[in-house]
Amino acid sequence: MTTAHAFMGMSLDGFIARQDHSLDWLMKFDTTDEDHGFDAFMDSVDGLVMGANTFKTVLGFDSWPYTKKVVVMTRSLSPQDIPAELQDKVRLSSQSPEELMQQLRDEDWSRAYVDGGQLVQSFIRSGLLADITLTILPTLIGSGVRLFGALDADQDLELMNSQSFGSGFVTNCYKFL
Amino acid sequence: MTTAHAFMGMSLDGFIARQDHSLDWLMKFDTTDEDHGFDAFMDSVDGLVMGANTFKTVLGFDSWPYTKKVVVMTRSLSPQDIPAELQDKVRLSSQSPEELMQQLRDEDWSRAYVDGGQLVQSFIRSGLLADITLTILPTLIGSGVRLFGALDADQDLELMNSQSFGSGFVTNCYKFL
Repeated sequence: MTTAHAFMGMSLDGFIARQDHSLDWLMKFDTTDEDHGFDAFMDSVDGLVMGANTFKTVLGFDSWPYTKKVVVMTRSLSPQDIPAELQDKVRLSSQSPEELMQQLRDEDWSRAYVDGGQLVQSFIRSGLLADITLTILPTLIGSGVRLFGALDADQDLELMNSQSFGSGFVTNCYKFL
Repeated sequence: MTTAHAFMGMSLDGFIARQDHSLDWLMKFDTTDEDHGFDAFMDSVDGLVMGANTFKTVLGFDSWPYTKKVVVMTRSLSPQDIPAELQDKVRLSSQSPEELMQQLRDEDWSRAYVDGGQLVQSFIRSGLLADITLTILPTLIGSGVRLFGALDADQDLELMNSQSFGSGFVTNCYKFL
């Protein structure tokens, strides 16, 4: 079975990006001496699943940051939207989260890293997210793209771990019940 | 000088109550053996300042829970809305947060407990909140009344303390910078 896991940062008021998707409010924190667990998390997954918005944001970085396989969940992008140098690393999927997880199981993925606000919301609503490691940043930005969205029913969580850092970051890992 | 302080609980997705103001999602947690710091916080304040919605919610409790003075910030309630047995404990104010804080200073309040989502937002926007002790509950409720609202500018915070509990509650104290 493949399990799905998220690793996100959000402002204390619940945003993962400004409305224009910028991350300046996040980048201003100097946390170079802190280990929020991202490397260990990345080591633990077989690959990444992300939405089109996240993919476009990552394409804007100076260099492609991932060594692992990436699946972009999209109904709007087509193969020519993938730069040539990423053709062997990135593939597109128009499947539902359930269908994709079934396929990843067939491909022997053990753990999938689900990234991007809309996709994480979709996995939560589908009951497919096993856990989320959520770093809460000590800032209020007032508006932007929210991590969490509407739900059909309350979703209870179990706190697996909580750690705070000198930067004021608090990293909590929650298991979905 | 009087300083203003908030002590709130919110769901991980940022809500302090359901849209109908109900708190059932919060009440279901058994935290009787845990000290989230509320008694010490209450001991530290000279009195409470709350909005009309919070006042109405508290009036619905089995008994009036506060021994300290309460100021209800409202332009809609009038003195006859205060039950007779609370007339010496509760007073109404239609002042702005700034005006009220000035008056509380004249009355030698050292610390005011500001309660209620709208009022806390108003104090934050006015730059009048010194700190917030925020307990994050391990549940997503999907919709409701938000703790935080729109801002004119980013509001940075300093994490003063973070503590997690067996219930999955995480209590963080943030100072407003």
